[in-house]
Amino acid sequence: MPTISSNRLLGRLRALGEIGRDPNGRLVRLAASDSDQLGRDQFVAWLREAGVDIKIDRIGNIFGVWRPDSVCEDRPVLIGSHIDTVINAGILDGCYGVLAGLEVVETLRDMGFAPYRPIAVAAFTNEEGVRYAPDMMGSLVHAGGLTVDEALATVGVDGTLLGEELARIGYAGDVEPGSLRPAAYIELHIEQGPILEREGFAIGAVDNLQGISWQKVTLEGVANHAGTTPMSMRYDAGYAAALAIAFVHDLAQDSNSASVATVGSMRYEPDAINVIPSRATFTVDLRDPDEAHLRALEAALAGYLESLRAKSGVSVSVERLARFEPVCFDERIVRLIEQAAARRGLSSRRMTSGAGHDAQMIARVAPAAMIFTPSVAGVSHNPKEATADADLIAGATVLLDVVLDLASAAEQRHGQF
Amino acid sequence: MPTISSNRLLGRLRALGEIGRDPNGRLVRLAASDSDQLGRDQFVAWLREAGVDIKIDRIGNIFGVWRPDSVCEDRPVLIGSHIDTVINAGILDGCYGVLAGLEVVETLRDMGFAPYRPIAVAAFTNEEGVRYAPDMMGSLVHAGGLTVDEALATVGVDGTLLGEELARIGYAGDVEPGSLRPAAYIELHIEQGPILEREGFAIGAVDNLQGISWQKVTLEGVANHAGTTPMSMRYDAGYAAALAIAFVHDLAQDSNSASVATVGSMRYEPDAINVIPSRATFTVDLRDPDEAHLRALEAALAGYLESLRAKSGVSVSVERLARFEPVCFDERIVRLIEQAAARRGLSSRRMTSGAGHDAQMIARVAPAAMIFTPSVAGVSHNPKEATADADLIAGATVLLDVVLDLASAAEQRHGQF
Repeated sequence: MPTISSNRLLGRLRALGEIGRDPNGRLVRLAASDSDQLGRDQFVAWLREAGVDIKIDRIGNIFGVWRPDSVCEDRPVLIGSHIDTVINAGILDGCYGVLAGLEVVETLRDMGFAPYRPIAVAAFTNEEGVRYAPDMMGSLVHAGGLTVDEALATVGVDGTLLGEELARIGYAGDVEPGSLRPAAYIELHIEQGPILEREGFAIGAVDNLQGISWQKVTLEGVANHAGTTPMSMRYDAGYAAALAIAFVHDLAQDSNSASVATVGSMRYEPDAINVIPSRATFTVDLRDPDEAHLRALEAALAGYLESLRAKSGVSVSVERLARFEPVCFDERIVRLIEQAAARRGLSSRRMTSGAGHDAQMIARVAPAAMIFTPSVAGVSHNPKEATADADLIAGATVLLDVVLDLASAAEQRHGQF
Repeated sequence: MPTISSNRLLGRLRALGEIGRDPNGRLVRLAASDSDQLGRDQFVAWLREAGVDIKIDRIGNIFGVWRPDSVCEDRPVLIGSHIDTVINAGILDGCYGVLAGLEVVETLRDMGFAPYRPIAVAAFTNEEGVRYAPDMMGSLVHAGGLTVDEALATVGVDGTLLGEELARIGYAGDVEPGSLRPAAYIELHIEQGPILEREGFAIGAVDNLQGISWQKVTLEGVANHAGTTPMSMRYDAGYAAALAIAFVHDLAQDSNSASVATVGSMRYEPDAINVIPSRATFTVDLRDPDEAHLRALEAALAGYLESLRAKSGVSVSVERLARFEPVCFDERIVRLIEQAAARRGLSSRRMTSGAGHDAQMIARVAPAAMIFTPSVAGVSHNPKEATADADLIAGATVLLDVVLDLASAAEQRHGQF
């Protein structure tokens, strides 16, 4: 069986992880920043060494395309992820998928594989969305969900214009986004959750990605003196918020679906020890792999807030912050992942992605799926983010096998892609 | 029956309420500040007009002592409150009790009353405690609960030293605090709560003051990704806090005592929409007029937090911020208040003070009680703080009658004070 170069992959991961350290040693490569430029330059240098065609599109997505003479079709198998990071990031989130993609291309080329279609590696711009909203921007533009002109006009949290910043760092390319339409898309990523590690699986065959509903709830009561206001005369926004938080948590916990519900942000006003809160503002993050379940969660929360209004006398207002329907990945590719893992003697399970990924955008325009590898303690977006070397290699090996399947003439003869 | 000068009292309340306005029109006379000096200077000018002896003690408490030739005893009837304010205050909290005291002295003098003992009016330093902690400082020092040297060494939130600031504004007196020991103490104050207005009473005969327990509770869980962490694998500090808030609220609401429980301040960390809170820090303000009930509330909360630790896996730490036992006021003075109200045809009810007052400190060294008047909508510490003029006059009139009783030779014959 073909084998990737573990040392090359792990070495590049560590090398890229050293690029963009701030004076405190924190890894920070925000989209289109100076440190993002350094990371991109390194990736492009490796693409150049690998001898692939380099294409940069107008939103700054970088593609390395391997198109040997054997190809019979234009549409590539695309392997993608991102190399921008959050603030104080780990070295794996995103970079692992991009560098493993490059590793796969080089391995296939070095073993003399003659693909039926091109194989390309993509590093999408601004997946993290820390500096410019929305996140997953480069893949969203690639998939036609946002025009490139709108995206380039985005003003960042630091007041900069994304288009100007991309031009400044030399990554405002001339390729029209979306022109490289893939026959299939595959993304390898760390799980960023605890399931694979806890359950002892080496590989996650990700068959769907949770739908997300983000809301901001504001409850308004009446500020009053904590000592002089009898319990029966209170309109306590903090108490009402506590009831709502317990409700939404228990709702998700007791559901038969894989629902998750999180209240991550909370603010009281006036926020004084001896004053009954007049206002409680909190966020609700609801996720479910099934759209009907997600809608049911939203409806149950809305009903509860309505009952709270009647029962406790607080006023309720709800602002929708974000809403994405669940994404179902391509069953054929998911099955290829499972088969590849089995052939390599690796345990795998089907699973849901709880986080958002570029794959969910590309799934709009091509058959797509994801491979997950275990995250130590489920930690990510954090310097403690880690995956065992053996797991990193196992994931890249499964990626290699799946890409080989997707790009081989035999697979094509099945007429599947 | 003797009558106070309504116009003089209301006029002085409004005049003092104009002193210490900031550029935005907010009333701010923090203890020992420039604007506090202006308020004190006005009060002292009125004392001087009234022809009473003016004494300033080392902690800046101001006393105006009326001691006509008729007096047979040294210990005065003391009428007190404070003229420092919170930030963006109303004009009544504190000032009403002080200026009504002065009004009573002038009325009694003008009507030719010959008191058995001196009658004194006090404006205690730093009742509000906004700039220097603790609050009710001047009366606490007067009662011997804090040494004057410790109090003068207090560093304010602005880094200033109280002793230096008092000297700077000319109110570091030379009288030893506590040397003016009263035979009885009476304080007139707005209720700062909704009870008298809601129930239609003109006068509150305050027979006790709630005990107060302030705690800061910190719950520590584990921050994790809101999308990728199944409900069963979470240690959600925000959810645990919500359960605790609901518990403590319902405990007070369902108690047979006059318990109140408030969670007024709350902070999540990291406080991000898509991260499970690793830490929730909140305050708990418990009050009850009965010490046994207050202890039972504290014990129930501690037990619940212990069960939460076992049930939800969060760690719990509790810091005690303040603790005062309930204060029982002097039954004889409370009865004089009820009788005075009845003679004037004013409805009254016995009640608890939910807020802290100088009276609770002076009650340590002298028989004491309080008179409450209705607060419109229960509002205080706010420019909307209001009491109807008729209610202000009714309260001052009851104060007049009670002081007359306490300072009269007839009352002394009963050997009560």
